Amino acid sequence: MAKMKKAPRPKAQTPKGFRDYFGAEVTKRSEMLSKIAAVYHHYGFDALETSAVETVEALGKFLPDVDRPNEGVFAWEEDGDWLALRYDMTAPLARVYAQFRNDLPTPYRRYAMGPVWRNEKPGPGRFRQFYQCDADTVGAPSVAADAEICAMLADTLETVGIDRGDYIVRVNNRKVLNGVMEVAGLAGDDKEAERGIVLRAIDKLDRLGEGGVRALLGAGREDESGDFTKGAGLGDEQATIVMGFMSAKRDTGDATVARLLELVQGSNTGTDGVRELETIGELLDAQGYNADRIEIDPSVVRGLGYYTGPVYEAELTFEVTDEKGRPRNFGSVSGGGRYDDLVKRFTGQEVPATGVSIGVDRLLAALDAKGRLSKAGIGPVVVTVMDRARMADYQAMVAELRNNGIRAEVYLGNPKNFGNQLKYADARNSPIAVIAGGDEFDAGKVQIKDLVLGAEIAKNATLEEWKDRPSQVEVARGDLVAKVREILAGQGK
Amino acid sequence: MAKMKKAPRPKAQTPKGFRDYFGAEVTKRSEMLSKIAAVYHHYGFDALETSAVETVEALGKFLPDVDRPNEGVFAWEEDGDWLALRYDMTAPLARVYAQFRNDLPTPYRRYAMGPVWRNEKPGPGRFRQFYQCDADTVGAPSVAADAEICAMLADTLETVGIDRGDYIVRVNNRKVLNGVMEVAGLAGDDKEAERGIVLRAIDKLDRLGEGGVRALLGAGREDESGDFTKGAGLGDEQATIVMGFMSAKRDTGDATVARLLELVQGSNTGTDGVRELETIGELLDAQGYNADRIEIDPSVVRGLGYYTGPVYEAELTFEVTDEKGRPRNFGSVSGGGRYDDLVKRFTGQEVPATGVSIGVDRLLAALDAKGRLSKAGIGPVVVTVMDRARMADYQAMVAELRNNGIRAEVYLGNPKNFGNQLKYADARNSPIAVIAGGDEFDAGKVQIKDLVLGAEIAKNATLEEWKDRPSQVEVARGDLVAKVREILAGQGK
Repeated sequence: MAKMKKAPRPKAQTPKGFRDYFGAEVTKRSEMLSKIAAVYHHYGFDALETSAVETVEALGKFLPDVDRPNEGVFAWEEDGDWLALRYDMTAPLARVYAQFRNDLPTPYRRYAMGPVWRNEKPGPGRFRQFYQCDADTVGAPSVAADAEICAMLADTLETVGIDRGDYIVRVNNRKVLNGVMEVAGLAGDDKEAERGIVLRAIDKLDRLGEGGVRALLGAGREDESGDFTKGAGLGDEQATIVMGFMSAKRDTGDATVARLLELVQGSNTGTDGVRELETIGELLDAQGYNADRIEIDPSVVRGLGYYTGPVYEAELTFEVTDEKGRPRNFGSVSGGGRYDDLVKRFTGQEVPATGVSIGVDRLLAALDAKGRLSKAGIGPVVVTVMDRARMADYQAMVAELRNNGIRAEVYLGNPKNFGNQLKYADARNSPIAVIAGGDEFDAGKVQIKDLVLGAEIAKNATLEEWKDRPSQVEVARGDLVAKVREILAGQGK
Repeated sequence: MAKMKKAPRPKAQTPKGFRDYFGAEVTKRSEMLSKIAAVYHHYGFDALETSAVETVEALGKFLPDVDRPNEGVFAWEEDGDWLALRYDMTAPLARVYAQFRNDLPTPYRRYAMGPVWRNEKPGPGRFRQFYQCDADTVGAPSVAADAEICAMLADTLETVGIDRGDYIVRVNNRKVLNGVMEVAGLAGDDKEAERGIVLRAIDKLDRLGEGGVRALLGAGREDESGDFTKGAGLGDEQATIVMGFMSAKRDTGDATVARLLELVQGSNTGTDGVRELETIGELLDAQGYNADRIEIDPSVVRGLGYYTGPVYEAELTFEVTDEKGRPRNFGSVSGGGRYDDLVKRFTGQEVPATGVSIGVDRLLAALDAKGRLSKAGIGPVVVTVMDRARMADYQAMVAELRNNGIRAEVYLGNPKNFGNQLKYADARNSPIAVIAGGDEFDAGKVQIKDLVLGAEIAKNATLEEWKDRPSQVEVARGDLVAKVREILAGQGK
């Protein structure tokens, strides 16, 4: 047999655009998602975990975002079928509802949390696998379902740690916008492209300002880099109507509703839409969700093409510093709305649905900025190893600590160099090291080193002082647990 | 433009071998995993969540199980790179350790929980996506690391709800087996195939019994269907040595160790292995883990080829009834061992590692069989809708219930047919329905229907009695929350 050529070593790397999450990154996210799940459950929503893999046929191959029609999914062929990783939680929900509709309650309230995958160009802070956390109600035509999700969104934000006053849930209605388009002469199938451009232009109000949006409504806009984006080609009067819609927000919901009614005069769709907003406002008021938490805001349109009625988004209103050091509002962390066509793809039957998606990483970043995440990575108490032959004794100590509710571990590396053991404890962010050698065992004692205090002393001590640091105490072996507890309490941990 | 042919409707189906998880299936698993994570964390292990997608190069293309060398992964080509879904948690750990070894503590204790994907032929109860829950210690050559994982495994089982006495953690050592093979004349590179067959034969002791294993050690074995499996071709004397190893277990660990030392006499590897088992026993005794929880059992070999030292598995010893109605032990729910070569693939350097994997679905099934899972799906209180125009009032009720800690929802379907609302409440497994129409609103009252009691009465009542069932009471609107609480308490929920 010919000798096989030795294969080169594989590269130890995640694929481009993917990353790993370590320790507190995992547990903080998981804590936040548990809190969110509890709120959703409290509202009567049930968990659903779909398979990560779907047929391309069921998924629809591309993202529904009309801004990025060529962005795709990770797909492959398997025994003649094309399979793909889910790119969001909504497409699988539509498949599940179509598949199991006879067994599911109607309306069906469900929540879903987990990773989704997008075959997009990766960039800084932009990954090809990330978490989504969705709640949707399928089969409920009433805007009471939309109101409920807005209320739930407010509760969710407060539950995870965003104070009232630091967020606002904004509600709008696509029908109002469609009404405005009608009034502006943009109704009809032949104007679909223009309406798409208008929609996306409005969605960029935050970023481009009124001037930029106005340019996109007209001939088009050149950005700083010289790139030109073609506009909707609206005349001045038309553009003024659309711009008027975006600035229709008044001090109270009632005043905003009145202003919107004026703007959509003559359009039945538009009037319906405003009435729906009015109803949502009433329903929320009845539950005690007032304008300090949820408000009608006509500038919210949400980019996705598939929304058909109410749309909503949650914005965090506190300031953070952006990458250029300028203060700015934290911005949107969640959004959603009503969509009625997704299930129809499968069954031919239109099924009303409304739902919200929370940007998990954005919300985590917000909680981090507010100092609302549990303190990261307090390490375990480390029982060091002075005498390899006494491993059973060290294991007994560590078991005793653990049985008394204290996170603890024994040092399992090569014990020869004791300095390495302390370095290890340091790398583990360990609060305490337990030390015992032959002398201690003979005397029935154990040394306990307060690593937090030790680090503070070390900062201000000479080498001489360091040798006899008071941060280390000797206690009877039987007092191990009590002393460790006392020191941990003193460290506030 | 030519008219596009209308595409047929997509099928609403998961791909073959994949499934969805609903409601309590999701939350029960998630509760169990949280408890396991807490035990792992308590032992000083840190969470790690790797990307679901790896390069095929980093992953190694196939499963390391030599029994199924052709079983594969889900893989696809992306910009010239071959990517694949992870098939276990160990291969990604090896990649992570090789990639981040300079930043990670050594030893590195980590746990990982999540789905893995296998491109295998699906079958009943055999899915292509399932959960794994692993804990591994990388960089610790000492068998103290193996002992620690065995202790942690025992703690984990008790924490999730398996009583002491209902499980046993069995420990063995590959070196002992290798020693036995040496003694039986199966050492040397040219005997690798035979050793592999012996290993897999021993692993089937549970299923095939001694006769079946003996046949596989010799010429081979014909199963009931007539399929023939080629054996290792061992002579009688050789086979007797191997069989002696499998039945070497004695009443105490010390006696088993003594018996094993006899069996491996003349083999250094074998003697080392037995001494390691002895040390593991001592370390566990020192921590209070005695033979009622963890024992040395030479019949445990674990099928995977990559183990190099201690191997361990947890068996649940209580009886369940199998699909044919026969009582049998529940069997293995977890296993693992020491492997030293996985990181070497990347770095050229041998890194000692040991770890355990819990079969999440098996353990859940066991907890279910023991009645240890939280009661499934108690639904929300359903506030029904008698008068669509009063939706705000119903929403106010439901908000009040929720604000008082009661899971509740308003009926959001078409309210026209009231019977459908009660059917819905039934499908939701709802404990209580709240009912209010014009009369109730005028009188400041609300009807509260105990659906649990109602169902019991309905079983034993005629239609006449049913009409005026005492399970429904009228209370003042202001007493809504108090009365609902009282009824829930009476239902024991």
